[in-house]
Amino acid sequence: MSLLVVGSVAFDGIETPFGSVERTIGGSGTFISLSSSYFTDDVKLVSVVGGDFPADKIAMMHGHGINTEGLQIKQDEKSFYWKGKYHMDLNSRDTLVTELNVLADFDPIIPDSYQGVDYLILGNLTPKIQQTVIERLHKRPKFILMDTMNFWMEIAMDDLKVTLKMVDALSINDEEARQLSGEYSLVKAAKKIMAMGPRYLIIKKGEHGALLFSEDQIFFAPALPLEEVFDPTGAGDTFAGGFIGYLAKTGNISFENMKCALIYASVMASFCVSKFGTEALESLAEEAVTKRVQEFVDLAQFEISM
Amino acid sequence: MSLLVVGSVAFDGIETPFGSVERTIGGSGTFISLSSSYFTDDVKLVSVVGGDFPADKIAMMHGHGINTEGLQIKQDEKSFYWKGKYHMDLNSRDTLVTELNVLADFDPIIPDSYQGVDYLILGNLTPKIQQTVIERLHKRPKFILMDTMNFWMEIAMDDLKVTLKMVDALSINDEEARQLSGEYSLVKAAKKIMAMGPRYLIIKKGEHGALLFSEDQIFFAPALPLEEVFDPTGAGDTFAGGFIGYLAKTGNISFENMKCALIYASVMASFCVSKFGTEALESLAEEAVTKRVQEFVDLAQFEISM
Repeated sequence: MSLLVVGSVAFDGIETPFGSVERTIGGSGTFISLSSSYFTDDVKLVSVVGGDFPADKIAMMHGHGINTEGLQIKQDEKSFYWKGKYHMDLNSRDTLVTELNVLADFDPIIPDSYQGVDYLILGNLTPKIQQTVIERLHKRPKFILMDTMNFWMEIAMDDLKVTLKMVDALSINDEEARQLSGEYSLVKAAKKIMAMGPRYLIIKKGEHGALLFSEDQIFFAPALPLEEVFDPTGAGDTFAGGFIGYLAKTGNISFENMKCALIYASVMASFCVSKFGTEALESLAEEAVTKRVQEFVDLAQFEISM
Repeated sequence: MSLLVVGSVAFDGIETPFGSVERTIGGSGTFISLSSSYFTDDVKLVSVVGGDFPADKIAMMHGHGINTEGLQIKQDEKSFYWKGKYHMDLNSRDTLVTELNVLADFDPIIPDSYQGVDYLILGNLTPKIQQTVIERLHKRPKFILMDTMNFWMEIAMDDLKVTLKMVDALSINDEEARQLSGEYSLVKAAKKIMAMGPRYLIIKKGEHGALLFSEDQIFFAPALPLEEVFDPTGAGDTFAGGFIGYLAKTGNISFENMKCALIYASVMASFCVSKFGTEALESLAEEAVTKRVQEFVDLAQFEISM
């Protein structure tokens, strides 16, 4: 089934204890599109870049079957640029540079050919832009997943609350869930957040896995214990892309199927962090994905007699 | 099958953000014995207390089928006392008081009736005492699990290394695994630690679950997401007690069976943290355990088609 991805397409500068890159492609729209492209051939991207964005990287997206008709290219402007530095444990980072550039006045134009999409994922952007996207779709998609971050809770909470009422599911990390709800316990936090709108909540805990909540069920997907983590940039977006990609592939939004989607989400994130930026996602073999799913089965499955 | 438990039996003073108790019973031997008693009727305890230890609490242990013939009571001395204060997130704590008392010159005497035990768990004690216990058993148990802590890595590393070569499995938390191995990655840490002796390693991550490593397999058991955690004291010992108790009950030390043991370990720990001290473990209904196992199945099990 078709999937509309809205998010940033940008340049990232990344410093980790294991090395650094000054300018690699990144952005929520990029990671989500690439990750979901391993599940469905009908990924439609809405985003904006400047004239400085490399044509070969757009061609690489086409190679993954990503439709970029909705990717605006503003020739005389510059692409969004973010630079961050990770601490030794890779669990925390400092933002060194944020240059909005083309993103400052981004108007998410939906091409006519994109109308009628079945699934929608709203990557991290202003809540107002996220709302605009939903309003511009003539038919509400079957399932809408949104991502957001603490920054919008601090400067655009009212808008965020409106957007939350318009979506089916929210994906955030544990600290953001605590900030949004004012609750330390993630179980309590989940209840409060679901009362704000979304029927499903994904709480990402990085190397500690992820939780999926519905009104009366909880599922946990572990993260794969890895010998080396090189760069966590984009892991959360890759996770969300794997989740929504699997739902779009299967066309099934039951909680049972969402469990599998969460496992595939963890699988994709485990590849993402193993190399810098989008490197791992650009050339992943299908067999590698299948092999890693089996590793998750071995890691988490047990047969208990009671 | 029979299980020998060696560990401290003591008084704990506990301060958490949700309340405090000045003097409740605790100690690794207490938590391990109580937890494992839900799985096997043949738990034999070796420990030492002072004359101040309440007779009704020893009777409570008997009520759980725990054999206390090896519990020395030094009438004119005082029991070990530890007092700690937990931080707001309950993940870290400060030790406020440590009074060794009877533990200062503890000689772990093994009653004749204890000889021939099938399983042995060495709770957190000096590595030297842990060695002595193994040396005093005429027949090596089928399976030996030991616990330890950072304190012994700092002041008795040489002894600890000797003990590590004598056991089948080690149970420690993530920070201790990093300290013992000098590796940040838990996968790398596990390899280094298993090279020091134990064929199996359990790394406890508190609210983030636990990992079980063998030479070529990894299994992950999640922690149950809880609305309220009152007191983490003893959770790690309760976890270890559930693990070894299940092994002793089933008499099966295959990796597949250890996976189930790790789930039961998480089940028992989830009860432990829901009340102060040993309160939850003192009166747990069998049906409550079975019901909670089902919650873990719902939380972690998925059926994926590849």
